[in-house]
Amino acid sequence: MKIILLSGGSGMRLWPLSNEARAKQFLRVLRNEISGELESMLERVYRQLLQVVNADDIIIVSNKIQVDMIHNQLGNVPIVVEPERRDTFPAIALATTYLYSELGIAEEEIVGVVSVDAFVDVVFYQKVKELEQLVQSTNAELGLIGVNPTYPSSKYGYLIPKVMHHYMEVGHFKEKPSEEEAEHLINNGAYWNSGVFSFRLQLILQKLKKLALPLSYNGLMEQFSKLSKNSFDYEVVEDLHAIVALTYDGYWKDLGTWNTLTEEMSQNVIGNGAVSEECENTHIVNELDLPVKVLGISNAVVAVSADGILVTDKPSSSRMKDMLHEGLFSRPMYVEHSWGSYRVLDFSNGKDGEVLTKRIHVKSGKNSGYHYHRLRSEVWTIISGKALFVQDDVVHKVLPGVVLQIPVGSKHCLYAEEDTELIEVQIGSLVADDDVVREIFDWNRIHLSNH
Amino acid sequence: MKIILLSGGSGMRLWPLSNEARAKQFLRVLRNEISGELESMLERVYRQLLQVVNADDIIIVSNKIQVDMIHNQLGNVPIVVEPERRDTFPAIALATTYLYSELGIAEEEIVGVVSVDAFVDVVFYQKVKELEQLVQSTNAELGLIGVNPTYPSSKYGYLIPKVMHHYMEVGHFKEKPSEEEAEHLINNGAYWNSGVFSFRLQLILQKLKKLALPLSYNGLMEQFSKLSKNSFDYEVVEDLHAIVALTYDGYWKDLGTWNTLTEEMSQNVIGNGAVSEECENTHIVNELDLPVKVLGISNAVVAVSADGILVTDKPSSSRMKDMLHEGLFSRPMYVEHSWGSYRVLDFSNGKDGEVLTKRIHVKSGKNSGYHYHRLRSEVWTIISGKALFVQDDVVHKVLPGVVLQIPVGSKHCLYAEEDTELIEVQIGSLVADDDVVREIFDWNRIHLSNH
Repeated sequence: MKIILLSGGSGMRLWPLSNEARAKQFLRVLRNEISGELESMLERVYRQLLQVVNADDIIIVSNKIQVDMIHNQLGNVPIVVEPERRDTFPAIALATTYLYSELGIAEEEIVGVVSVDAFVDVVFYQKVKELEQLVQSTNAELGLIGVNPTYPSSKYGYLIPKVMHHYMEVGHFKEKPSEEEAEHLINNGAYWNSGVFSFRLQLILQKLKKLALPLSYNGLMEQFSKLSKNSFDYEVVEDLHAIVALTYDGYWKDLGTWNTLTEEMSQNVIGNGAVSEECENTHIVNELDLPVKVLGISNAVVAVSADGILVTDKPSSSRMKDMLHEGLFSRPMYVEHSWGSYRVLDFSNGKDGEVLTKRIHVKSGKNSGYHYHRLRSEVWTIISGKALFVQDDVVHKVLPGVVLQIPVGSKHCLYAEEDTELIEVQIGSLVADDDVVREIFDWNRIHLSNH
Repeated sequence: MKIILLSGGSGMRLWPLSNEARAKQFLRVLRNEISGELESMLERVYRQLLQVVNADDIIIVSNKIQVDMIHNQLGNVPIVVEPERRDTFPAIALATTYLYSELGIAEEEIVGVVSVDAFVDVVFYQKVKELEQLVQSTNAELGLIGVNPTYPSSKYGYLIPKVMHHYMEVGHFKEKPSEEEAEHLINNGAYWNSGVFSFRLQLILQKLKKLALPLSYNGLMEQFSKLSKNSFDYEVVEDLHAIVALTYDGYWKDLGTWNTLTEEMSQNVIGNGAVSEECENTHIVNELDLPVKVLGISNAVVAVSADGILVTDKPSSSRMKDMLHEGLFSRPMYVEHSWGSYRVLDFSNGKDGEVLTKRIHVKSGKNSGYHYHRLRSEVWTIISGKALFVQDDVVHKVLPGVVLQIPVGSKHCLYAEEDTELIEVQIGSLVADDDVVREIFDWNRIHLSNH
């Protein structure tokens, strides 16, 4: 059974530690119970899935800006990259065509779709795998996982049974009922809808046919913008009648807000920080070197990154979006790439133009692309490591203390022979990540001018 | 009447916005009711004193590290600089000898001592001035100001009257009574001790004679370390019998903690920050560009500077000291000098040595001292302004974009023709503010090598 793992989400609900490039699923704040180390939601789900299926059977769907982060955390796994963010139906449809036209999976084959948001026991994924058998034997159109509710939540969707066997024949759905309604539903045997889907490829392929869209991966990739921005529930599930579900009685939590995420955090303080003794249930997540001290405040989260500082009491953290419209940086302040990462140290926009100062880390054996800038010059001061620096087709060996001046239009890149760090000062009429004109450099033809 | 203004305090009670160089009295968080602009405690007290005495009559006592800050805020005022921090008795004794031997004030003259910590109406300082007449006419040894208590505080000292005239003959003192005792004292006519002192110079001069210490300013400066680290109350007041006090019925508050300071803040948010609507009585003071968001937390202070981040509920803020022992930076992250200021952007200590990145601002018309470093090289990238850069006795004109490399041992300084900013990267075996060897450069002999 192939598993489609949706990992494209972003959003600001875990600001300031998530931004466009770095969504919540990449935050290393959970504890791996086996190794004792910190791990991210993505790493946790992937590790749990590997206990149930083979690595080859997992297809991750994400977007361009997150590809480097996924490869950094999971290694070189296959990723279906959405050309743009649309919603869960387009994402699942694209992954389905990938399985169909690229991997040659038959249209009768049953796949499972899981998302990276849920914090569960591995038993949950065993149930996902069992859905294949259940959908097969019941000849259902769709298989789901119902979670045994622990309280009458008004935030979840509910599955209401028509008939209960060892599995559920789903009668109908109820999205976000009031607590009273939820209590009534639970008393009548309803389960939380976990958001897992299992279906035959043909369910999606037929839908694409109806929409007059291609069934091939490359074809659909080109016409991706024609898929409407709808959820899988809205676009597919609402039209179905034969729906079954397995029930799951274990731990299940949506790690979507600071409130729920910190409940699963491995320790109260991650990073440089301290809470005074009388603070109960208060968490600090601090990605900066800046020390954080919390005195006499309970049930709160203090989250600090290069993007900003959040101080929230836990119940309020779900209302975050409303707060986040003013005063935020327009640029991401910390970004990871496959070649390394950078942190913005300082930015200003004065009468002499824009100035951006970064600390850049290039991993040993990696290089940035060969490129030049139209609107800015750069000054690099190497502060650690050992690297080759190519400028206008000439290669220089560089060591700590070396200063490199890169005028507008000068082609350059850096290859790290060892982990290399530098302070970069960009000065120009506009300093933007997209002022990059890529060039080709043939690393095989290196000659060292400075040997 | 001469006024000695004690402004040497530092301490961590308003961390992270106060550090060794930048004590609480320099924070510009109060509103000047007249101009509507932000002002510091020092600026406020000095402005109020000028309504009562002449500028020439005010002598500020502080320490070396705060001199530049005081000049930045008040202009070129006279400052008695303690060779080291000891306590209020040594500070007042040193200022007394300055008045006596340097300004030639007679030993029968009466002076007033006020501190920068109190937030009061200007009437308070009028009372201070009236003490001169009272001490004179009653032939008392010491004059004080009693504040009419508004509640039975256990944090203040109390003056208990022997006889009440239009002034008080002080019977005895009670330091920090319990609230019950305080209530009893207030019912019997006690007042809070405001910490103001007024006395004839000879009171201190005789004390110095007894201690076999010099009465001259320069002499006492040299033997300053022989003065014991005692408060004026302990060293002088305890032995006196003829003590009088004027009473003051207006606003009086000690701005020593975030709790009391924020009550006088001109606005709830200073700097880049926002609090959600339901936060009551919550303040943000943010000196960084980093946006700060507070959600659903009332009665709290979030204070952010290059030194760190504090999140405290207001009653807890007085217990700050206990928290501040671990994880703080050992270097000040933001420092003001007479020539400008710098902010530390980044620091690391790796196998290739220490690396410190600063953003430096040099004010128009100012220059740093001519100097070189033994243990570090520096790279300066000019990012705004216009300046003359002197290196090894050669003068260069520099503009934004220019990169200056300063190896170990190379003499250098910068004179800003306009406000000039630069990014500095220091690399060395040790990067410390005291690795500076001062040299002389004669600015009159400038020749421009790069004209």
